[in-house]
Amino acid sequence: MPLLTNMMEPLRLEPLFPERGTGEPLAAQLARRLRDAVENGTLAPGTKMLGSRQLALRLGIARNTVTLAFEQLVAEGYLTSRSGSGTFVTPSRFQRARRPTVTRSSQAERARFAALRGRFDAATGRGPLRPGMPSLASFPRAAWNRCARRALSAYAGDIGYGHASGLDSLRREIATHVRQFRGVSALPEQVIVVEGAQSAFHLASVVLARSGDSIAIEDPCYALARAAFELYGLQLQAVRVDRDGILPGELPAKARFAFVTPTHQFPLGGTLPLSRRLKLLAWAKRHEAYVIEDDYDSEFTSRVRPLPALQSLDRDERVIYVGSFSKTLAPGLRVGYLISPPHLASAFRVARASTSLGVSLHLQATLAQFIGGGHFARHIRRANAAYETRRTILARALDPLADSFETGPMQVGLHVALIARRRFKDRAASEISEGERLVPLSELSVARSDCRGFVLGFTNGSDDEIASAADRVCRRLRNLG
Amino acid sequence: MPLLTNMMEPLRLEPLFPERGTGEPLAAQLARRLRDAVENGTLAPGTKMLGSRQLALRLGIARNTVTLAFEQLVAEGYLTSRSGSGTFVTPSRFQRARRPTVTRSSQAERARFAALRGRFDAATGRGPLRPGMPSLASFPRAAWNRCARRALSAYAGDIGYGHASGLDSLRREIATHVRQFRGVSALPEQVIVVEGAQSAFHLASVVLARSGDSIAIEDPCYALARAAFELYGLQLQAVRVDRDGILPGELPAKARFAFVTPTHQFPLGGTLPLSRRLKLLAWAKRHEAYVIEDDYDSEFTSRVRPLPALQSLDRDERVIYVGSFSKTLAPGLRVGYLISPPHLASAFRVARASTSLGVSLHLQATLAQFIGGGHFARHIRRANAAYETRRTILARALDPLADSFETGPMQVGLHVALIARRRFKDRAASEISEGERLVPLSELSVARSDCRGFVLGFTNGSDDEIASAADRVCRRLRNLG
Repeated sequence: MPLLTNMMEPLRLEPLFPERGTGEPLAAQLARRLRDAVENGTLAPGTKMLGSRQLALRLGIARNTVTLAFEQLVAEGYLTSRSGSGTFVTPSRFQRARRPTVTRSSQAERARFAALRGRFDAATGRGPLRPGMPSLASFPRAAWNRCARRALSAYAGDIGYGHASGLDSLRREIATHVRQFRGVSALPEQVIVVEGAQSAFHLASVVLARSGDSIAIEDPCYALARAAFELYGLQLQAVRVDRDGILPGELPAKARFAFVTPTHQFPLGGTLPLSRRLKLLAWAKRHEAYVIEDDYDSEFTSRVRPLPALQSLDRDERVIYVGSFSKTLAPGLRVGYLISPPHLASAFRVARASTSLGVSLHLQATLAQFIGGGHFARHIRRANAAYETRRTILARALDPLADSFETGPMQVGLHVALIARRRFKDRAASEISEGERLVPLSELSVARSDCRGFVLGFTNGSDDEIASAADRVCRRLRNLG
Repeated sequence: MPLLTNMMEPLRLEPLFPERGTGEPLAAQLARRLRDAVENGTLAPGTKMLGSRQLALRLGIARNTVTLAFEQLVAEGYLTSRSGSGTFVTPSRFQRARRPTVTRSSQAERARFAALRGRFDAATGRGPLRPGMPSLASFPRAAWNRCARRALSAYAGDIGYGHASGLDSLRREIATHVRQFRGVSALPEQVIVVEGAQSAFHLASVVLARSGDSIAIEDPCYALARAAFELYGLQLQAVRVDRDGILPGELPAKARFAFVTPTHQFPLGGTLPLSRRLKLLAWAKRHEAYVIEDDYDSEFTSRVRPLPALQSLDRDERVIYVGSFSKTLAPGLRVGYLISPPHLASAFRVARASTSLGVSLHLQATLAQFIGGGHFARHIRRANAAYETRRTILARALDPLADSFETGPMQVGLHVALIARRRFKDRAASEISEGERLVPLSELSVARSDCRGFVLGFTNGSDDEIASAADRVCRRLRNLG
């Protein structure tokens, strides 16, 4: 065992000099630097360390700092202290491996996730016609910031562990909002505050299904919901959608739940008629299945109010209702809600606490004040009026494409589908210009190959931006035809 | 089909009168009230409605409002319009069921969740000695609120969809923090910002395991982590813990991952020595397993810095590191982090986006400023000094129990274990007084029955409160002995 009597000659001292003002205590810094020296081999196993007094002098630090660092490294096993003879680098040390072992099973996992990642990218639009992005310019910043400041000073007692399912005040406001706007009947106890619809899809999967179970999903459908279900290991059963929404006659006999967007089908835009709603609920009752209702943008509507939520018709507690503030306010708030049937409310609360102890209490308090103060309803009214203008602009601008594309229903929500009348390679045509990309319907299709075209939003830009983006789309798609 | 010529006589008009100033448009209100009347049978199938002009007059609202409501209900199928003869309640209507059908399978699910819920409750303490609750009174509110206000005005562009894995600025600050305080080496790309450790446990399960897989867990262990794994359907393999932490020789041959608290075992308090750390890593490498390292309160330490994180020794990318701001700042912020090995970073990012699109951007921006401005390191230093006092107070106050209880190590973190030397029914003795409850070790045990006693925190109260609570514990437990 080579016990060098002095380590300082072979080891250049510079790497040990402490940096001041970094917030890291000097003893911790020195320990870290010595540790690195042991690990990278600069300090070989068995090396005798300089005495603490001598090292302190050379580094210009207190001796006590060196002693602390040595004690630390002795505790960690990097150094060994022999009474009377000094401190040594512990003889047998592990060496830093050149490369990590990435196993074959890890590689398989990586491939699985890479496939999912591709789906996310493919389903995202860019530019003024990006679907699913509300007008951030019209976010009611002044009112929001007032509520946020008030909540900041008020939340004295509110920095402990809150209820994982949400602040009572916010759950009450959400229950009132969905009753008034969507006809949803729910007690605050049924409301679970989550980070957005994506969390709600995942949470519902956790409560309702096990990995390997089958679920029914609209075809075409919202890609991120699909990703949530696939990641959880669910088997997708595609159910076709027409101009009015899902075809309940095609629902499979065996499925834990169906995922639907009954009031504004994503992406095709249909509003499911009452008769189909009743069939869907009867299916759920008959098969002891559930229905996840994603009601993501029904607050926005042209003239007539949309149908109330499917949940309002549910007499058998089969509907899990999902809403989000990402479309009605802004995605960056990161808050949404799930409304559980009464008999599952306790299960949802437990599952929520097991997967996340909840959303920022300050955010929740701000939002509760914002809704309670009437700002939310006011914002929806204003935004709806502005969106109505853009809806009309987009509809008109797409007229020249009528020969090749059918336009989906657009009385509700923030997007419209442009469905090709003939066979068409939508993916190839989705890049409109630098920075502008439409979402092709092929990327949102599960099993079908007959539904091609695009989903266009009309809220991610001003009136003029929407108009000129729509013109570019027309030019691009007419050139193809 | 009974077509009453006038519905207004049987139906009292009061339920239809609109409420003003609720934010709900009058037409929507009227539609809702008429819908209720149909559903509860007040308006029988086939009933002929009053004309819109007459109804508007009686209710004192605009005729157009009534027309809109009628149109809505016709669209929904509640009313049927016959040209020339008027508007009728649609003849065949579904009836509100008396009771929902709660199926047998739903009942089984409910039982599963009820069991989990019981575990949560049993593992929660109350009073000044509640473990896991930092001193909220010393939360640096002024500095935090300054950062929050600045972030509010700055986050103009930041209300869109952010990166689901976190703001770049915050991920950089976290990478720096864990390097300085915990010796963790990570690029910002490996950092995933989550709502807290609970979300991290769940996310790691999603990435590393499938329902039905086995995992190794410390015995006794942190109950909420256990709940996360159980909810995900994982099979627990209990591995005993001694005064120094987990016994790596007892790790099972087959497990997808091991969950450990190497720097401050929860609940017993041990710090895993280097030799065991290396064995744990060798186990993970040999079995292609991973290690989830929960490093929840190691920033707080008495005199000597604790061992660096296990992650710092990981040469084979087997460690998933989990940290939280719930102990270092406040649980109500609801933010924590997971640090993925490089080869799994992309998988974690995709899994994160599939289960949640992320944490409030305002919160993240606030926290990034708070850390970057040096407030975080300063707060930890101050809190650490205050906690050191309380640690000493508690240790002394427990002295009289030394005959019946061994005190676990308490150099690191915010709690201490009080381990019974003889057979002892800890559950029966856990209620100390009204509002004061200790967490019994039996509730944290997985398979073993030889580890009884309590976990006591010392940060959920002032020095005096800790001292007097500890006295009450002594009196209560000595009375039992």
